[in-house]
Amino acid sequence: MSSSRATLIQVAERAGVSLASTSRALHGSGASVAMVERVRAAAAELGYSPDVTGRSLRLRRTFQIAFAVADIGNPVYVEMMTAIHEVLAPHGYRVVVMTTGDTTASTTELVRSLGSGFVDGMIVSPLRTDEGLVHAIRRAPVPVVVIGRPLGAHGIDSVSTDSAGGVGQAVRHLLEVGRRRIGFLNGPLDTTPGEARKRGFDDAVSAPGFAAERVDVALAEDFTVAAGMAAAHRLLAAVPDGGRQLDAVVAANDLLAIGAIRAARERGLSVPEDVAVTGMDDTELGRVFQPSLTSVSLGSAERGRAAAGIVLRLVDGDADRTQETSVGPRLVVRESTTVLPRPRSGAVHGGAV
Amino acid sequence: MSSSRATLIQVAERAGVSLASTSRALHGSGASVAMVERVRAAAAELGYSPDVTGRSLRLRRTFQIAFAVADIGNPVYVEMMTAIHEVLAPHGYRVVVMTTGDTTASTTELVRSLGSGFVDGMIVSPLRTDEGLVHAIRRAPVPVVVIGRPLGAHGIDSVSTDSAGGVGQAVRHLLEVGRRRIGFLNGPLDTTPGEARKRGFDDAVSAPGFAAERVDVALAEDFTVAAGMAAAHRLLAAVPDGGRQLDAVVAANDLLAIGAIRAARERGLSVPEDVAVTGMDDTELGRVFQPSLTSVSLGSAERGRAAAGIVLRLVDGDADRTQETSVGPRLVVRESTTVLPRPRSGAVHGGAV
Repeated sequence: MSSSRATLIQVAERAGVSLASTSRALHGSGASVAMVERVRAAAAELGYSPDVTGRSLRLRRTFQIAFAVADIGNPVYVEMMTAIHEVLAPHGYRVVVMTTGDTTASTTELVRSLGSGFVDGMIVSPLRTDEGLVHAIRRAPVPVVVIGRPLGAHGIDSVSTDSAGGVGQAVRHLLEVGRRRIGFLNGPLDTTPGEARKRGFDDAVSAPGFAAERVDVALAEDFTVAAGMAAAHRLLAAVPDGGRQLDAVVAANDLLAIGAIRAARERGLSVPEDVAVTGMDDTELGRVFQPSLTSVSLGSAERGRAAAGIVLRLVDGDADRTQETSVGPRLVVRESTTVLPRPRSGAVHGGAV
Repeated sequence: MSSSRATLIQVAERAGVSLASTSRALHGSGASVAMVERVRAAAAELGYSPDVTGRSLRLRRTFQIAFAVADIGNPVYVEMMTAIHEVLAPHGYRVVVMTTGDTTASTTELVRSLGSGFVDGMIVSPLRTDEGLVHAIRRAPVPVVVIGRPLGAHGIDSVSTDSAGGVGQAVRHLLEVGRRRIGFLNGPLDTTPGEARKRGFDDAVSAPGFAAERVDVALAEDFTVAAGMAAAHRLLAAVPDGGRQLDAVVAANDLLAIGAIRAARERGLSVPEDVAVTGMDDTELGRVFQPSLTSVSLGSAERGRAAAGIVLRLVDGDADRTQETSVGPRLVVRESTTVLPRPRSGAVHGGAV
C-alpha cells in the first residue's frame, strides 16, 4: 500500500471517518485531538503524504470561507448561503456570515479586513460596485469571488446572472397571455439589481413586436413586501382620464410582487383575472403563495454553488485564469399569470360539502 | 486624559473608527495591519490599558461564535441567525454557520470539535437531545448556549420557549371563535418540537372547559409545506359516517399551516370560512400569506438575541451562574381564523372597476 501513493480517501477509509474530518485533521484546524491522532495514525500506516502542489501549499489554513451580503435574512441570500454551505461542508470548510453594509465603502473595508487572515477566501455579493471596491478585491490577500455583475474584465472571479434578460422574459410572457397594459414595479435605481432590471424593462418595451397599449413605472423604496405594496397602490391608482386599469404588473422581485398582489386585492382587483403579476427570484415564498407566483428564477442556489466551486479551486490553487460564470434566467409560470377556466371558489365549495 | 482611566470608547473616538474595529485591533484577530497601527497609536496616546478582569483574560480570541442548527434555510433559524448577528457584530464578533445534522451523535461530534479552538463560543439548537450530547456540552472547552429545551438543571446555559403552552393558546383561540371540530397537524414525534407540541395539544384537550365535539390528529413526515399538505389531506378527508368536516386545524408550525390551507383549497374548502387554520413561529411567510396566518410567535429573534447576549457574557467571563432564559409564546391573530363580515371578492371587484 505504501509503495504506490496513498490518497486522502484511503486515509479516510482506514481511519473510518469522513473525508472532511480527515482533511481537517491533516491540514488545518477544526478537528478534535482524538480525531487528529486517529487520522494521523491511519496516514502513517498508509505512508500517506499530502500533495505538495495542492492543498498543502499553504501551511496554515483556517478552513473558513466568508459569505458577505447586505441582508442575511433576504430569501435570495439564504438560498445562496445554504447552497454554499452544502458545497463547502464536505470539503471541511465552514461558512462565516458577514454583512457588507449598504455602501461600497463599507464593503471595501470588509474586503480589506481579509488581510488579517481569518478566512481562506470570500464570496461577496455587493449591492453596489465602484472602482475602490474593484481595486480592493483585486488586491485582496485571499481569493474573492463576486456574485453580482460580471467582473472578468477586471480580472475578478465572478458569478453573474442576466436579470435584465429575465425582465424581458416576464414582459414577453405577459404579452403572450394577452396582457396589454403593463406596469413595472422596480426597486431603487442606484442598486445593481434595480439598475439591471430597469435596463431589462426598457429593452423589452423598445423591442420589435412590443404590442402593449400602455406602460407605467413605479419605484419602491426598497425590495420589500411593504414597500412593494405602497408603490403598487400608486401604480394601480394611476389611471388617466378614460384610461383602463393596468392588466399586468412586472415586479422586480418576489417580495415586491407579493406586495403588488396584496395591493391589488385591497383595491378589489383579483389576481390574475384583473391583474396578472410576475415576480423575480423564484423564492419558496412565491412558490407557496396563493396564487402561486409566476417568477423568473435567477438560480440563487446555482449561483451559490458555482461561487463555492470557484472559491474552492482558487484556495487550492487549481485555477490559473479568471473564472467568469453566468447563470441564465428562467421563467417559471404559475397561477399569478394564468387564468384557469374553473368555477369560482363559492361554487366549488357548495358542490364539495 | 491618561491620569483617569481611558475607555475603549475613547480609544475608538480618538482613532476615528468603530468600537468593533477598535476591540478587534486591540484584542484579537480580524483587523488589518493599518487598523491595528491606527488603534494602537490612539490607545498609546490615551494611556489606555485593557481591562484585566474582562475581555483580555484570554490572550487569543478568535472573535467568532458558531451558530449550529439542523437546517440553515429554515425561516425560524434564519430569524435567529439574523438576530444573533445583529447582537454580535457591534462587539466585533463574526457568526460561523454550522449544521448539527439530524442526530444527537452528529451534534455531539460537532460540540466536541470545539476543542480545536476555532470559535470562542457556540449557540446550538439541537433537534434532539440525549445524555451524550448533554455530557459533551457540559465538558465543552468553550461556552455553549442551547436554544431549545431548558437545561439549567444540567448546568447548561439555555434559552427555551413554551411551545406546548403556545399550542394551548391556539386551541383556546379556536374555541373562542366558535370552532368545535379541531384537527391537530403535527410533525415527527421524535423531535423536540414535535414532542412538545403533542404534549401541548394533549394538555389543551384534557383541560377543564375544553368544549370541542371532535378531535383528529395527523402527523406530517417533516415540518415542510409539502409534508403538511399531504397530511392535511388525510386530516380533512377523515370524516366518519354522518360526521361533519373539521372546522379548524392547529398546525405545529407555519409551513405545515400553509400546507393545510393549500390542501383545504384543493378540497374546495375556504379558509377561514369553512376551516380556520393556525400556525406556529410567526414567520414572514405567514404574515404576507393570503389569508394572512394566525400564528403563535415563539420569539425566534428574541431567543436569538437572548442566546447571543448570554454567550457574550460567558465569553467575557461575566456570568457566574447558569443562565436559563425563557421566551413566552404569544398568539398573533390574523385572517386565517377571522371571518370578516365583508362582501365576497366578486362583488367588491364589480363595484370598484
